[in-house]
Amino acid sequence: MDIARSPLARPFPEMPPIAGVTLRVARAGYKAWDRADLTLVELAEGTSVAGVFTTSACASSEVEMGREQVKQGQARALVVNAGNSNAFTGQRGREVVEQIVGQVAEALSCSTNEVFVSSTGVIGVPLPGDKARAGIEAALAAEPCGWEDAAQAIGTTDTFTKGAVAAAMPGGTRVELAGFIKGSGMIAPDMATMLGYIFTDAAVAPGFLQEMLAKANAATFSCITVDGDTSTSDTVLAFATGKADNPQLASWDDAGADAFYAALLEVCRELAQLVVRDGEGAQKFIEVAVTGAESDASARRIGLAIANSPLVKTAIAGGDANWGRVVMAVGKAGEPADRDRLSIGFGGTWAARDGEPLPDYDEAPVAQHLQGEEIRIDVDLGIGTGRATVWTCDLTHGYIAINADYRS
Amino acid sequence: MDIARSPLARPFPEMPPIAGVTLRVARAGYKAWDRADLTLVELAEGTSVAGVFTTSACASSEVEMGREQVKQGQARALVVNAGNSNAFTGQRGREVVEQIVGQVAEALSCSTNEVFVSSTGVIGVPLPGDKARAGIEAALAAEPCGWEDAAQAIGTTDTFTKGAVAAAMPGGTRVELAGFIKGSGMIAPDMATMLGYIFTDAAVAPGFLQEMLAKANAATFSCITVDGDTSTSDTVLAFATGKADNPQLASWDDAGADAFYAALLEVCRELAQLVVRDGEGAQKFIEVAVTGAESDASARRIGLAIANSPLVKTAIAGGDANWGRVVMAVGKAGEPADRDRLSIGFGGTWAARDGEPLPDYDEAPVAQHLQGEEIRIDVDLGIGTGRATVWTCDLTHGYIAINADYRS
Repeated sequence: MDIARSPLARPFPEMPPIAGVTLRVARAGYKAWDRADLTLVELAEGTSVAGVFTTSACASSEVEMGREQVKQGQARALVVNAGNSNAFTGQRGREVVEQIVGQVAEALSCSTNEVFVSSTGVIGVPLPGDKARAGIEAALAAEPCGWEDAAQAIGTTDTFTKGAVAAAMPGGTRVELAGFIKGSGMIAPDMATMLGYIFTDAAVAPGFLQEMLAKANAATFSCITVDGDTSTSDTVLAFATGKADNPQLASWDDAGADAFYAALLEVCRELAQLVVRDGEGAQKFIEVAVTGAESDASARRIGLAIANSPLVKTAIAGGDANWGRVVMAVGKAGEPADRDRLSIGFGGTWAARDGEPLPDYDEAPVAQHLQGEEIRIDVDLGIGTGRATVWTCDLTHGYIAINADYRS
Repeated sequence: MDIARSPLARPFPEMPPIAGVTLRVARAGYKAWDRADLTLVELAEGTSVAGVFTTSACASSEVEMGREQVKQGQARALVVNAGNSNAFTGQRGREVVEQIVGQVAEALSCSTNEVFVSSTGVIGVPLPGDKARAGIEAALAAEPCGWEDAAQAIGTTDTFTKGAVAAAMPGGTRVELAGFIKGSGMIAPDMATMLGYIFTDAAVAPGFLQEMLAKANAATFSCITVDGDTSTSDTVLAFATGKADNPQLASWDDAGADAFYAALLEVCRELAQLVVRDGEGAQKFIEVAVTGAESDASARRIGLAIANSPLVKTAIAGGDANWGRVVMAVGKAGEPADRDRLSIGFGGTWAARDGEPLPDYDEAPVAQHLQGEEIRIDVDLGIGTGRATVWTCDLTHGYIAINADYRS
């Protein structure tokens, strides 16, 4: 099927090379398509790695292995297979991952522990070992490519290619951050969402990189949802090659650690929002800002209850300022709330305050706001200081068309 | 808008009168429509009542009052307003409910505690007190009507009228049970779903009636979902007039208590399934049977994760035996599961066993099954003896059309 490019798409940004990172792609032919579908990223010796993964109880072998690998903190290569997730494929699936890791480790003379693998696509079909082997051979022999080619090669149902970039000056040394990501459906919170990769030439100790990635993940990838469905393969990895020769960042007390984290957070937020902008069938980008909750965690759960509500999402799709459905979603979130202190607004205009519709509520500016592509919902619980912002898209005929009208 | 009658609709059953129950309807005109929208049920003195209500933190005044009223266990009247839920209407909303209760209690010379009120429809608009007063006056003066008229008058977006009936012989005395329900969208688990009312001429002590209703609710209304969205007004009430003159049922040890419970369970299950059959946009009725889970509660949560998954629901809508999406939903449920022991089947045919696709899996009978209107998904976790069955419908363009294409 041909899926139209999302109206919320963003152009791929200008992204600088990152010293110590070499990108290559190849055609493994995992599906009957005419495109590169295997990405091989070679990383300089001494590269630190951190990762966050799906919380699914049915995670793929790639995720199981990655969870173990990040513990030792070093990476020399990343392989991403597109078109087949290799999830729920039992022993046969595990063997193919081991084969890939062995092949790359031998070629790069590194430990198998330092070769990370991700796969995305259909569930329940073992990744074909012969195609993987030939694809990696071709990638190892290929000329290096740019960010956009690599970002394109990891996509599946994505309608546009997604990258983000930032820079920081820790300890007076300029460091670059670049990341790319894929994802459009089966997007839900409570995990590292989808396949996302962030590269930097900064020198960062693995443990501290993991701490920063986990913190950024909680405020970005874990705050987006397209359909509330959590994938079996979600992975976000961050690689730091150290080639910028800044004094190594190892704790929050180090000079420039806060600046580096701010840049990392910026890349994570942009990548996360790009996935929502490519949400299946999305016509509108929705920001839900929750304030006055009992805690930040409670605010996030309330925000996600709103963002995952089919009735809220279809109301926005229809340009309907149906704040009653927002009340419903707050009520079902299972979090502390006081109906009579609850306030709800759209695009900066309050529709209801302290549990009642505003008597002088003017729907005109709200209706105007809902005609746009960037929608803002404000919810104030009025019972505490907890706050969170989550992002989602509307629920349209496009989602049904992509997931029901065509066989996957 | 005109919504087509659900293809899964069932005819309204033959329902006998229940001694001690008098039904009347009237036109309060809560919306600009040409139909009865106020139902008044008069109950004989000595009627026991039990109720289960939404768990929403933003419940309506009607629900708040009902939660208190069931504690004293006696009922003389029920009023149901259709077209306006009176939820999220603050003090003004509360005052209208108090006015209704006062008016009916005075007419029937009973306590205000014995008058139950439910309202369903738009959220955030106070129920107009003048219309309610005139409607109740008209209902009090009206001729008694039959079950179908009453069931019709409580409906809103329902595309068919829903009733269920059963009988039992506790202590050798025949007792009748009759119930009706409304609901189509904003249907989700973890509560008494929608507005449902069950009447019996059996003599049952209020505390025991509550115990039985709560138990039946857990296996029926709490096991259905249309869209995962929990309403602010969900209510199921059971009334026992005692007019059958059976020896009063007061505990599980009483003769016939089990038989009466079986009949109550049957009515609850039928009513719950009728709501799913009228799910917004539903084209297929889906039964998800989960076995081998760590506990019954865990099985239910896994079943609901599957039943609420947009990707599973759209796959069924498309006639796609996409068991990979079922694996995904099991994985995201947050419940104990072992990927390598998981088995999944459709319509009695296993597609995957012990974490792998079956090598001799024959998709033909499954594809045939998925063309039908009654779909069965089997999931065996293989780790325990917990089991649960939940019911849902598919997710189609009809759901989007009802909730996005038209302003509510």
